[in-house]
Amino acid sequence: MNPIDIIIKKKNKEKLTYDEIAYMVNGYIDGSVANYQMSSLLMAICLNGMDFDETYYLTDVMLKSGDVLDFSDIEGIKVDKHSTGGVGDKVTIALAPIVASIGIKFPKMSGRGLGHTGGTIDKLESIKGFNCYIGEERFRDNLRNIGVAIGGQTKNLVPADKLLYALRDVTGTVESIPLIASSIMSKKLASGADIISIDVKVGSGAFMKNIDDARLLAKTMVELGKKYNKKVITTLTDMSTPLGNNIGNSLEIIEAVKTLKGEVDNDFSQLVFYFAKNIVKSALKVDDDKAVELVKESIESGKAYNKLLDIVKYQDGDISYINDINNIPLAKNIIEVKSEKSGYVDNLDAYKLGHLACSLGAGRIKLEDSIDYSVGIVLVKKRGDYVKNGDTLLKLYSNCDDNSIYVKEAIDAYSFSDNKKDNKLILDVIY
Amino acid sequence: MNPIDIIIKKKNKEKLTYDEIAYMVNGYIDGSVANYQMSSLLMAICLNGMDFDETYYLTDVMLKSGDVLDFSDIEGIKVDKHSTGGVGDKVTIALAPIVASIGIKFPKMSGRGLGHTGGTIDKLESIKGFNCYIGEERFRDNLRNIGVAIGGQTKNLVPADKLLYALRDVTGTVESIPLIASSIMSKKLASGADIISIDVKVGSGAFMKNIDDARLLAKTMVELGKKYNKKVITTLTDMSTPLGNNIGNSLEIIEAVKTLKGEVDNDFSQLVFYFAKNIVKSALKVDDDKAVELVKESIESGKAYNKLLDIVKYQDGDISYINDINNIPLAKNIIEVKSEKSGYVDNLDAYKLGHLACSLGAGRIKLEDSIDYSVGIVLVKKRGDYVKNGDTLLKLYSNCDDNSIYVKEAIDAYSFSDNKKDNKLILDVIY
Repeated sequence: MNPIDIIIKKKNKEKLTYDEIAYMVNGYIDGSVANYQMSSLLMAICLNGMDFDETYYLTDVMLKSGDVLDFSDIEGIKVDKHSTGGVGDKVTIALAPIVASIGIKFPKMSGRGLGHTGGTIDKLESIKGFNCYIGEERFRDNLRNIGVAIGGQTKNLVPADKLLYALRDVTGTVESIPLIASSIMSKKLASGADIISIDVKVGSGAFMKNIDDARLLAKTMVELGKKYNKKVITTLTDMSTPLGNNIGNSLEIIEAVKTLKGEVDNDFSQLVFYFAKNIVKSALKVDDDKAVELVKESIESGKAYNKLLDIVKYQDGDISYINDINNIPLAKNIIEVKSEKSGYVDNLDAYKLGHLACSLGAGRIKLEDSIDYSVGIVLVKKRGDYVKNGDTLLKLYSNCDDNSIYVKEAIDAYSFSDNKKDNKLILDVIY
Repeated sequence: MNPIDIIIKKKNKEKLTYDEIAYMVNGYIDGSVANYQMSSLLMAICLNGMDFDETYYLTDVMLKSGDVLDFSDIEGIKVDKHSTGGVGDKVTIALAPIVASIGIKFPKMSGRGLGHTGGTIDKLESIKGFNCYIGEERFRDNLRNIGVAIGGQTKNLVPADKLLYALRDVTGTVESIPLIASSIMSKKLASGADIISIDVKVGSGAFMKNIDDARLLAKTMVELGKKYNKKVITTLTDMSTPLGNNIGNSLEIIEAVKTLKGEVDNDFSQLVFYFAKNIVKSALKVDDDKAVELVKESIESGKAYNKLLDIVKYQDGDISYINDINNIPLAKNIIEVKSEKSGYVDNLDAYKLGHLACSLGAGRIKLEDSIDYSVGIVLVKKRGDYVKNGDTLLKLYSNCDDNSIYVKEAIDAYSFSDNKKDNKLILDVIY
């Protein structure tokens, strides 16, 4: 077996065997397959595809490249959640306390943000003191004691994916359904949960730009789950427009806290409750009505909010920031961006706003960039809202003195029409 | 401009600009574009192609990456010749003396062999003392004085192609018409000739396995030549079966010498005379009959043979090896391989025989491998010949003691049928 023959096989649209995929991936880890050979194969996979078997082989090889977590010694059903990444997506931060407060264990490995989408770890770290690297022992203790722990991925969790993802990122080979499916699923399968809820974002702000690709990705992940007896629930949700009203790390924490207090009624809170309901249904084997009732009760009783306080406390965070969200430091300049047109907001482009937030300092362009937690965007007018000329569209939270370019970008993200269009948040559920 | 965006553009089947191609190729040379990014782009080019403009841009960028030779101070039309590589292809060694003896200048840059195909430099170096690295001054002097010089490519002749070819070789990205066309043409355009004769090999022993790909490659090269006012004559020739009877470095020198003495009448000698005729026609602007007459005369008068002696003498070779070919050392064991079947030779696989010669030691698997000049194969029965059970099919020239595996491989390269099939050596001429 040699790398060149395997690359040429995929170049010629032939199916790779388990051993060939293992040879390439393990060879890439140990250095016997060069990075320029791996990137050539990755591009051939992007363009010629892989069938389900090959995708399963790749997932399995990656899964076995490192540690596989096992929480079977901790009582109860364990649920994990993943999002393919979107703008304003702070779902985990509200979902985790709700689910855990209902008695379902929630061990969650999260990532950092890169490019126009944010990451849960960064958002949580905007809470003073919050520690996502508490070590396996404390992670297990927290899961046992308060039913939930949120950590950054440890070094030895699917090391193959870390190496491959870093290479894909710089070789134009990120967008590929089999590569994305195996990357997500190898990490989720290594994370030890029984039920895996995956939010597949679709639209301008997501990797999946169209619904057909998103469906194929979702089906592939559900089938991969079956190979390991894991229940995978995929939900296709709209990411052509940002989720919720707040974008930016501290601003997103504020929106999540308000949601747990029952003070938010928007697309974000709807989506959190929808995910929570489906997880409760599946984990506790109850019907829709009962699941909705349990979720509602967790909010109204304050249990979910208290669970968030527990999470912050158990992970070294300062709860005074949650107890009074006015304590959360925000950027020094708040610029109200006014509309120059009238009409219904037709499009509010997630990709453009994600980039704008990133430019303000809320995200990273390179992995080593630092983040300004205090900056971001609060959307006043969202898709479907009626706007009069001069109305405030959004507020920029900025630490820059000259924000004229950002104001222009913000206005560019909006388009208007005379008629109100229907918005559909949840596009499909596949499990 | 950044490498990732350019890679993704080609991944998405978009057309690259001159500046983008220059950015990638020059960046690869200076190290600002990583080899894993270049290989990803090369695979995207292999699978999504490049149109003529892009192929021209790549050729031009590569051409300008190093020195461009200029022989305009030396009188006469200069002709260069290239073969895409085949088994038993020693055309240059017979063609160069014929053309030069008719008064046409023949400055020739040649390469070494790799894999199942041999290289002209290796074949010439099998003549004791022969020096292909005589330096530019002597190369020019020889061209001026005897009308012909054969050299190995200098370091600074299209350095971009050297780097790219080395990368393509280990990343499964060799087979691509735009990449092959720009690689060949950048080198030929840098070599300073007015007329370029290119032998595009087609069949199992060649890079081009089918005639349609070969035609497209030929047309692309002719069009690229026009961009630089160079006359390019491409001849598509069969390489499903080896050319001539001898395979292996010294054995091929022997066949070339015999051809110049008028002692050979086979597909090899036919092809040499055909190329010579077309070059004479084009360089001297004479008709077919006159060109044939001049070529015949060069052989019959001994002028062509004497020109070979000149070449060897002027490049430090020992002419006693040419004057009496019995002086050329050959392998210690000559094994006659007998047929186990009767019938017309239907197929005589060039690829298999090329590999067999390589296994005997006539070629390289890796670039640093050394070559045994004395080994090889002499074909007794060629395609179309009638064979009786027990007849000698070929002779193996080997320095191994146990040749049973090679005998088996030799027999495997032959297939038989009841009817004699037509062989076509010259498939098309495009100019």
